[in-house]
Amino acid sequence: MLKDWVKTKRPEDEEINERLAKSRAQLTGMQMAIKEKKLPVLVIFDGWGAAGKGSVLGKVIKNLDPRFYKTESLSKPSEDEMRRPFLYRYFIRIPEAGKFSFFDESWMGEVTSDYLHGNINQEDYHRRLTSIKRFERTLTDNGYLVVKFFFHISESEQKKRIKELEDEKSTAWRVKKWDHWQNDHYDKCMDVYDEYLDATNQFVAPWYFIDAKNRKWAQLQVTEILVKSIEIALQNTGRAAAILQNTFPLKQMPRLSEIDLNKNIERSEYDKQLKELQDKLSDLHNRIYQKQIPVVITYEGWDAAGKGGNIKRLTAALDPRGFEVQPIASPEPREKNRHYLWRFWNRLPKDGHITIFDRTWYGRVMVERLEGFCSENDWQRAYNEINEFEKELCDHGAVLVKFWVHIDKDTQLARFTDRQNTPEKQWKITDEDWRNREKWDDYETAIDEMIQKTSTEFAPWHILESNDKCYARIKALKTVIEEIEKKL
Amino acid sequence: MLKDWVKTKRPEDEEINERLAKSRAQLTGMQMAIKEKKLPVLVIFDGWGAAGKGSVLGKVIKNLDPRFYKTESLSKPSEDEMRRPFLYRYFIRIPEAGKFSFFDESWMGEVTSDYLHGNINQEDYHRRLTSIKRFERTLTDNGYLVVKFFFHISESEQKKRIKELEDEKSTAWRVKKWDHWQNDHYDKCMDVYDEYLDATNQFVAPWYFIDAKNRKWAQLQVTEILVKSIEIALQNTGRAAAILQNTFPLKQMPRLSEIDLNKNIERSEYDKQLKELQDKLSDLHNRIYQKQIPVVITYEGWDAAGKGGNIKRLTAALDPRGFEVQPIASPEPREKNRHYLWRFWNRLPKDGHITIFDRTWYGRVMVERLEGFCSENDWQRAYNEINEFEKELCDHGAVLVKFWVHIDKDTQLARFTDRQNTPEKQWKITDEDWRNREKWDDYETAIDEMIQKTSTEFAPWHILESNDKCYARIKALKTVIEEIEKKL
Repeated sequence: MLKDWVKTKRPEDEEINERLAKSRAQLTGMQMAIKEKKLPVLVIFDGWGAAGKGSVLGKVIKNLDPRFYKTESLSKPSEDEMRRPFLYRYFIRIPEAGKFSFFDESWMGEVTSDYLHGNINQEDYHRRLTSIKRFERTLTDNGYLVVKFFFHISESEQKKRIKELEDEKSTAWRVKKWDHWQNDHYDKCMDVYDEYLDATNQFVAPWYFIDAKNRKWAQLQVTEILVKSIEIALQNTGRAAAILQNTFPLKQMPRLSEIDLNKNIERSEYDKQLKELQDKLSDLHNRIYQKQIPVVITYEGWDAAGKGGNIKRLTAALDPRGFEVQPIASPEPREKNRHYLWRFWNRLPKDGHITIFDRTWYGRVMVERLEGFCSENDWQRAYNEINEFEKELCDHGAVLVKFWVHIDKDTQLARFTDRQNTPEKQWKITDEDWRNREKWDDYETAIDEMIQKTSTEFAPWHILESNDKCYARIKALKTVIEEIEKKL
Repeated sequence: MLKDWVKTKRPEDEEINERLAKSRAQLTGMQMAIKEKKLPVLVIFDGWGAAGKGSVLGKVIKNLDPRFYKTESLSKPSEDEMRRPFLYRYFIRIPEAGKFSFFDESWMGEVTSDYLHGNINQEDYHRRLTSIKRFERTLTDNGYLVVKFFFHISESEQKKRIKELEDEKSTAWRVKKWDHWQNDHYDKCMDVYDEYLDATNQFVAPWYFIDAKNRKWAQLQVTEILVKSIEIALQNTGRAAAILQNTFPLKQMPRLSEIDLNKNIERSEYDKQLKELQDKLSDLHNRIYQKQIPVVITYEGWDAAGKGGNIKRLTAALDPRGFEVQPIASPEPREKNRHYLWRFWNRLPKDGHITIFDRTWYGRVMVERLEGFCSENDWQRAYNEINEFEKELCDHGAVLVKFWVHIDKDTQLARFTDRQNTPEKQWKITDEDWRNREKWDDYETAIDEMIQKTSTEFAPWHILESNDKCYARIKALKTVIEEIEKKL
């Protein structure tokens, strides 16, 4: 694709200057519309080393209001980023609604250089290509404009530029070993880039090649394409997207109404098992730290089902330096302005650590669905988006344990009444709890659908029968232990 | 992709019946909305032989109003279709706005079977994949809903069904040699299908796999996916799409203002050359028929530039059995209801024949642009769509000669005045001609842009300097002869 790309002839300098002045003014003028329409714009600058990505990027943002954009230099993942799933560092940097993010190098640079250096084999490389396609698609499906530039220069031009940079004292530091390696292996790199660009040239986020031999001409190409892309995105109000078919293996799961809630445990047996299991989990916590395995444990469940007490029995066994509990409330404005998975990507554990989520990304297909906080298209698309998200976690090597803490309607009523009547428990019960209770049937429908559609083989739901809270606690501990042991 | 597809578990019969009744009713109810919103819906049924595509299709349409759909059985191209570009037979059958077309087998069947039988080599196969992707994209970009089903059954299930069909006298005729071949080479076919499905699984027109072991279950899957896809398409009002970057080699062309219109020819020289060139063309007409080369000659130009007389000098040399002149006026309602290229696909010559278009698909970027008959996004996208269209023609082996018949503004005025003042020429001049003349400058801008963006190496524009009509006629003849000789 890059190999047989045919450049447009470069216009005369005078024409370039005129058109540049015009398109720069257009871009500047668009900032308010982008803000008003809450359009998030992600612009990525990929391409050959020494092709001038950084300097063109510098020119493009020169006339923009700094409140409306961020730039990110993403050549190499940090130590810290290396310890999280591959897409983490990109996902957390996506723009806010109404703003730009400019990336100096993207996931392309990282993945292709890993592949070229043999850090990842072909199978991993292709898995990453799939991840990237999904990532870009979920952004555009969610209303993001994604504009991808590839800065192209010839082998001889690259050689010349590297030499020029090195000959000048003030710029010599900008030449990296990687630039030399790329130039020495230009043809090999070209093969890999060509394949990559072809594989990721999706119609929702197509590639734009930039003839980067002349800086000003490159700047003009970038600015004009950007202006046109934004124009289209601002017109395009209907952003409903296809609901993709599930492609992941699913586990057969019962409906909530089929679950036997009479399970219980004797108090003495409970005390005994609790101690044994907590000791065991405590030991495992050390071992996952040594093996650098990240663990994600998620809790969803009915109000008053006993999530809090259940979580406490887990954390009691854990070294406080190695875990975090993340209580998830309504999204804050800065979270609402981003892709709904953004705030969860931001809260992922480092390798070797445990994060427990008290409520999760499944809010998208429960409360957001039932309260109309997102469109029907949004929540219907979310099952697949969530499965893809969890696939990323599991492919990264994480242990992922998802709990649904289950009680029946009568038990909830008894606990609500008890809370209301017990002064020291009254803070635990609000009007909202009563309102949610009225929607029990709608919730049950949504939860059944959620459990059916997101119990993948790699991340199935575990039901905790919690009419007897002690039974549920023991089951949670056992499940977490079992799942961690599978990975050790 | 198909290889690692995981089926959803089939529900109980009772549930299937309930859901089927519901989704069938939904589909029936949607017909009016589809009509009102003028949504064209193309549904394709691909998959293994004997997988039950036809019988499920029969069930799906059973409750639809016959005025709202067409079905097409597209297993093998006819003799006649073989003589046109590969996509022709599909393009001419796309649905009208507000209606369904159901295809029993699509381009997938044709291309993969050609490849499996060695009728086309790998290079051709990949070129066809590219064509198919472009085809599907230009449909969806233009507001079409394209829903693609692949009916999947196992090797043993296919064997069993073929046997059942053959054992029954009334159905034995439905088993084709191809079905046996496919079953005998199931793994080989699977490899090719898997690659094909992956390559064409575009987000704008994704694949849906249908577990076809049970007919009723297959019918339910199809109906529910169809209902959901239509729901989304009906929501989606903003259908502006990305303007893709040109990927074809372009020829450097002059602006209209740079063209020397003083070229002329002596009358005696004209008479001599005209006869020689017409004799030569007449001879070539026989040869292209023998070699089965299709020829497309297109005329665009200013009003009163002399297109008609120019065309006459060409056709005078041609055998009437082997050519057609297609005068292009405003689109008729049935044409307006389709993709703007549809009416031109319908008028393409057979192999060995010549079609001369008096005005063309370039109306999209001239009159439709200037009169606001299409959106800005539509005509901006059209340059690439047209280049892709012409690439299809050239890849098929056609000779394509595009003429712009050029005069200056004074010459037009002189000819208009002459027409007005000469009773037998008055029919040639209308108020619209005068109105268009007032927009000369806007047209000039549009024409310059058109010539720059659509002069590909494989289909460049030829300018006919027509202040001296005789000069233009000789040049047209010479150009056509030259272009045909290149292909012989």
